[in-house]
Amino acid sequence: MDNKVLFDTIWVLITAMLVFFMNLGFAMVESGFARMKNTVNILSKNFIVFAASSVAFWALGWGLMYGNGTGSIGLEGIFGISGADNSPATGNAYQGAYTAMSWATVPLLAKFFFQLVFAGTAATIVSGAVAERIKYLSFILFSFVLVALIYPVSGHWIWGGGWLASLGFWDFAGSTVVHSVGGWAALAGVLVLGPRIGKFRDGRIHPIPGHSMPLATIGVFVLWLGWFGFNPGSTMALDPEAIARICVTTNSAAAGGLLSSTIVAWLLLGKPDLSMTINGCLAGLVAITASCAYVSVGSSLIIGTAAGVVVVFAVLAFDRMKIDDPVGALSVHLVNGVLGTLAVGLFAEARFMPNTTGDGLFFGGGNSLLLTQAIGVGAVGAFVFAISITVWYLIKVTVGIRVSEEEELEGLDVGEHGMSAYPEFAAAADRYSETVVPKDPPSPRPKLKPGSDVVLER
Amino acid sequence: MDNKVLFDTIWVLITAMLVFFMNLGFAMVESGFARMKNTVNILSKNFIVFAASSVAFWALGWGLMYGNGTGSIGLEGIFGISGADNSPATGNAYQGAYTAMSWATVPLLAKFFFQLVFAGTAATIVSGAVAERIKYLSFILFSFVLVALIYPVSGHWIWGGGWLASLGFWDFAGSTVVHSVGGWAALAGVLVLGPRIGKFRDGRIHPIPGHSMPLATIGVFVLWLGWFGFNPGSTMALDPEAIARICVTTNSAAAGGLLSSTIVAWLLLGKPDLSMTINGCLAGLVAITASCAYVSVGSSLIIGTAAGVVVVFAVLAFDRMKIDDPVGALSVHLVNGVLGTLAVGLFAEARFMPNTTGDGLFFGGGNSLLLTQAIGVGAVGAFVFAISITVWYLIKVTVGIRVSEEEELEGLDVGEHGMSAYPEFAAAADRYSETVVPKDPPSPRPKLKPGSDVVLER
Amino acid sequence: MDNKVLFDTIWVLITAMLVFFMNLGFAMVESGFARMKNTVNILSKNFIVFAASSVAFWALGWGLMYGNGTGSIGLEGIFGISGADNSPATGNAYQGAYTAMSWATVPLLAKFFFQLVFAGTAATIVSGAVAERIKYLSFILFSFVLVALIYPVSGHWIWGGGWLASLGFWDFAGSTVVHSVGGWAALAGVLVLGPRIGKFRDGRIHPIPGHSMPLATIGVFVLWLGWFGFNPGSTMALDPEAIARICVTTNSAAAGGLLSSTIVAWLLLGKPDLSMTINGCLAGLVAITASCAYVSVGSSLIIGTAAGVVVVFAVLAFDRMKIDDPVGALSVHLVNGVLGTLAVGLFAEARFMPNTTGDGLFFGGGNSLLLTQAIGVGAVGAFVFAISITVWYLIKVTVGIRVSEEEELEGLDVGEHGMSAYPEFAAAADRYSETVVPKDPPSPRPKLKPGSDVVLER
Repeated sequence: MDNKVLFDTIWVLITAMLVFFMNLGFAMVESGFARMKNTVNILSKNFIVFAASSVAFWALGWGLMYGNGTGSIGLEGIFGISGADNSPATGNAYQGAYTAMSWATVPLLAKFFFQLVFAGTAATIVSGAVAERIKYLSFILFSFVLVALIYPVSGHWIWGGGWLASLGFWDFAGSTVVHSVGGWAALAGVLVLGPRIGKFRDGRIHPIPGHSMPLATIGVFVLWLGWFGFNPGSTMALDPEAIARICVTTNSAAAGGLLSSTIVAWLLLGKPDLSMTINGCLAGLVAITASCAYVSVGSSLIIGTAAGVVVVFAVLAFDRMKIDDPVGALSVHLVNGVLGTLAVGLFAEARFMPNTTGDGLFFGGGNSLLLTQAIGVGAVGAFVFAISITVWYLIKVTVGIRVSEEEELEGLDVGEHGMSAYPEFAAAADRYSETVVPKDPPSPRPKLKPGSDVVLER
Repeated sequence: MDNKVLFDTIWVLITAMLVFFMNLGFAMVESGFARMKNTVNILSKNFIVFAASSVAFWALGWGLMYGNGTGSIGLEGIFGISGADNSPATGNAYQGAYTAMSWATVPLLAKFFFQLVFAGTAATIVSGAVAERIKYLSFILFSFVLVALIYPVSGHWIWGGGWLASLGFWDFAGSTVVHSVGGWAALAGVLVLGPRIGKFRDGRIHPIPGHSMPLATIGVFVLWLGWFGFNPGSTMALDPEAIARICVTTNSAAAGGLLSSTIVAWLLLGKPDLSMTINGCLAGLVAITASCAYVSVGSSLIIGTAAGVVVVFAVLAFDRMKIDDPVGALSVHLVNGVLGTLAVGLFAEARFMPNTTGDGLFFGGGNSLLLTQAIGVGAVGAFVFAISITVWYLIKVTVGIRVSEEEELEGLDVGEHGMSAYPEFAAAADRYSETVVPKDPPSPRPKLKPGSDVVLER
Repeated sequence: MDNKVLFDTIWVLITAMLVFFMNLGFAMVESGFARMKNTVNILSKNFIVFAASSVAFWALGWGLMYGNGTGSIGLEGIFGISGADNSPATGNAYQGAYTAMSWATVPLLAKFFFQLVFAGTAATIVSGAVAERIKYLSFILFSFVLVALIYPVSGHWIWGGGWLASLGFWDFAGSTVVHSVGGWAALAGVLVLGPRIGKFRDGRIHPIPGHSMPLATIGVFVLWLGWFGFNPGSTMALDPEAIARICVTTNSAAAGGLLSSTIVAWLLLGKPDLSMTINGCLAGLVAITASCAYVSVGSSLIIGTAAGVVVVFAVLAFDRMKIDDPVGALSVHLVNGVLGTLAVGLFAEARFMPNTTGDGLFFGGGNSLLLTQAIGVGAVGAFVFAISITVWYLIKVTVGIRVSEEEELEGLDVGEHGMSAYPEFAAAADRYSETVVPKDPPSPRPKLKPGSDVVLER
């Protein structure tokens, strides 16, 4: 067999495993940023969402995304990866139902496995934003629809040879395909759900601190590791120059976002808030995802640094708009997914990946690439948001979407799952809160200067 | 050097590292499912067991398992991997003491490292079932014997060119060689040890919830990741078609088990219990391990789904039999190790791995393969259980096997290790339990309908 | 392209990712071994230190370490990896500013990424030793200087073609270059900072147990995994015999250290203390790092076992010297970094890596290698300690180095970051400690026999 098949397959499978591991990262970031009483529920959601995605993407999603079809949707070989396929044959030698992936020199199931873990990521992004008030069953239903139907359609436009690909829209590893799609679906869910009880009351924003910073920190390191699969793996080929550069651009953007968000939080809030540091790191990673293969290391530092600044203000802005996102998923994945996609239009350089983006605005390429990127951002956003809000609404009027007020106050762990995440700790903490604490979990001290009427979320 | 040596060595070493990482997974699942007061003990056991395995498998195990010898046991090059060996020469070119592994095109120490991490897995399975009452020293002694002597012998029968291999018994990645061997050894230990104090009293089964669902969740994601080393790595060769398919069958079985166990627990117990979801996922992974290379993706979904159903009833059944397994290790590794081995006889298809299993019963191959698999299951079970119960009994009558009642009530952390896993939390929790709680940790609510005399374990 | 470039690049990048993941390992070991009230601070330090390292090593460190220059320092292509470079050309075909790395057949950014994660490791070692009393800003400043200036200079001497390399000093994966450098920098910081309040008072040593053994255990498993990148990856080439052997020597040393430290702690302190087990494992890993490629599996077991014994006595000795190192970083990284470097002079065998070390003292090579190793240990120690203590002192007299006594007692989480790691748990624990506990966190029981005036740290 051609050595290239072996090289590319080991690369695709190992990077896919790293992306799979991001499920743990999301589970930890989200549960760490939520309250103790909802921990089992968040863990369960992050756990079952990948299983549901595995079935949904096998049953329908893969074919709709990569099957031969129109510019809008795949039509061949949809159910259960059942289409003809002679992978790892490539180019003109390829014969089968999934021509859009015929450039990758790996077996069909390697292509599927890699794309599956990406699809699962989009679904798990939703989990954090709707946390602490959504019904378990409703979340599972939406996740299934997202991975079976919504994600594959917008994905087909971009990575499945659809109309946005034809237009010259570039998203190397999925700032739009994965992150902003997850973000738009999450935003729709948040709007249909409404904020958590107590978050916005008496005309003020009340912080609800997460219950475990160690869990959140585990999560972000696991996600950072996983991103070394996400971005360099998206070559789907063992191209030494490209994957080495993508490792470094990815890491530099994470570092930039981490540093800038810490500094901005320090200046703005008076202390270097760890949750801002965490979200700044993730923001940098999301923002570099679209452009990681097309930009220099210097540009990646700038993109990541900008993302870290933006995410702090985005968190504050969503709070002011009374949009309640317990873990900052919208600020990280939606806002920076959009900005990262636009950054391709600004920072891309033709020298890195010939015959792809060409030069962006800052490198003498004019603004046509930027405009195309903006069209893609808008089209995907409009499609995903419109369908998602419809699906969320249908779920609301059928099985219901939100737990009862009583259950929300008691916590979803007991109400939805009949158990507690830490039964022995919880007993001690409950005892304390019955006698001493008011309804809100204690916040060590107000984080904004006296006189402000806004208290920072998390 | 032949490229194949390089391809296969990197694959074997990286997948071995993933399997090594499963030690963290087991440590987290087991400690999460145990009580706070026994956490240091469980972590210590999971930690030292791999060190003991590393020494035992180097000193004796490897040679007994893979050394040239009889159909029952290896006899050449036993101590310290000291046999002659010209790996990575293969087939007829191979000259050395470990002919059973001469098919793998990798250096001797790569073979050893990969097989060592498998041996360590078998030992760590035992840890969970005997948790919360076994003496630390006794566990270490048994682990050493298991990896030095018991595991290598039954392993020789199957993977070392022994009599079961000659008979046509197939276990691709170790549903029997690793999982049910660990399970039988654990069952013997549980029977010699007896149940924990308070588990079965007044004719009822009392739930003893684990102290940390986040730890258990970390564990299962790490194990799931590790299984992408365990199963696809068992090719010990970078065979693109095979490893891509095994990644997908492994993942599909995990997803199937996760979903079916959640649904069954939801229907049966009224709530989707997270610990059942976790064990369902692991059950699916154990069950697909023997057949992962021989079955279609569709079959893997069926096998995993069946495993997820079985594991729920197995947990309930062991409780009814008053067999106390704190983490469900018997239901996961023993029961599904057996079923997964039999599933080869049902679902195997000759088209996937020519010159191996042939077709199973459901694919027109008749029942001879199924019968051979059953013989292997029975022979290995009888051997491992008989030797193990003897060893456990010898340990019991010499150094003793169970901590004192006083120590068990106080917790093994203080008694065995002189420390606490969470000294600051524990102080608060103790204070609470002294004044308010009865001896048992609090369970948020009964999990079965009123009138039942059984309360679900965990 | 030459297959060797592809083989070596995938190996270098994947092992670099594993080394990156060690950041999580350090964060968990250090936070687990510290008190609850300082957890956010430790997590933040371990998080930001890699971001600062990423910028510092890109901006300056890489060029100073690997740029062409004198025997003491690199001078070409210093800022932003800006030197000419035609990698992956090697040997005489190489033309560029980084000749010292011209032996590695990988792209420039793959070399940089691999070396960056090593530099980050040195910086993160410091974090644990100075924990629970250092100002956040001061730690960040020192880390930046360490990675931008100190680490690259001593690194240039050894891995950058400098004077120690010319002298015949060998440090395969960094017992000196990384671990003892981090250790000397940490020792300087500890001396300038002084011990934590309450650690040494009334002429006695008071144990301050860590707040979470599960976090520490997660950390050590992640570090162990990461070491399979650290040591085998340091080949920077997919050499099957070498990397397979290094996997096994690395693992054997970890196992030896784990077992011996457990036994020694058991005999000396009466119980198998888990924190000693953990540090024994890490000590074995640090000690084998310099020699992993040059020694037999048997020798690696001896080296690791010795390290496990040494680390227990080192922890006790630092306590007696009133040098307060909350996590044992000095005992693990400094002491065993030094011993591991010397072990090359004792255990190296010329047969493993021709044209490198030759035979050590125990294998008939005489004592010249041992002497050269000792010279390197001394020179690097003197340089790093002298510069570090100067930098720490400059930080002390400018921005200050230590938090206020009030802040230290309250915890650095609130003082430095304005938040709590576990706000809900902390509330319960605080409530308890206000009413019941004296200032020190509770220690389950004294760990030394009555009459002793020393109580074991951790």
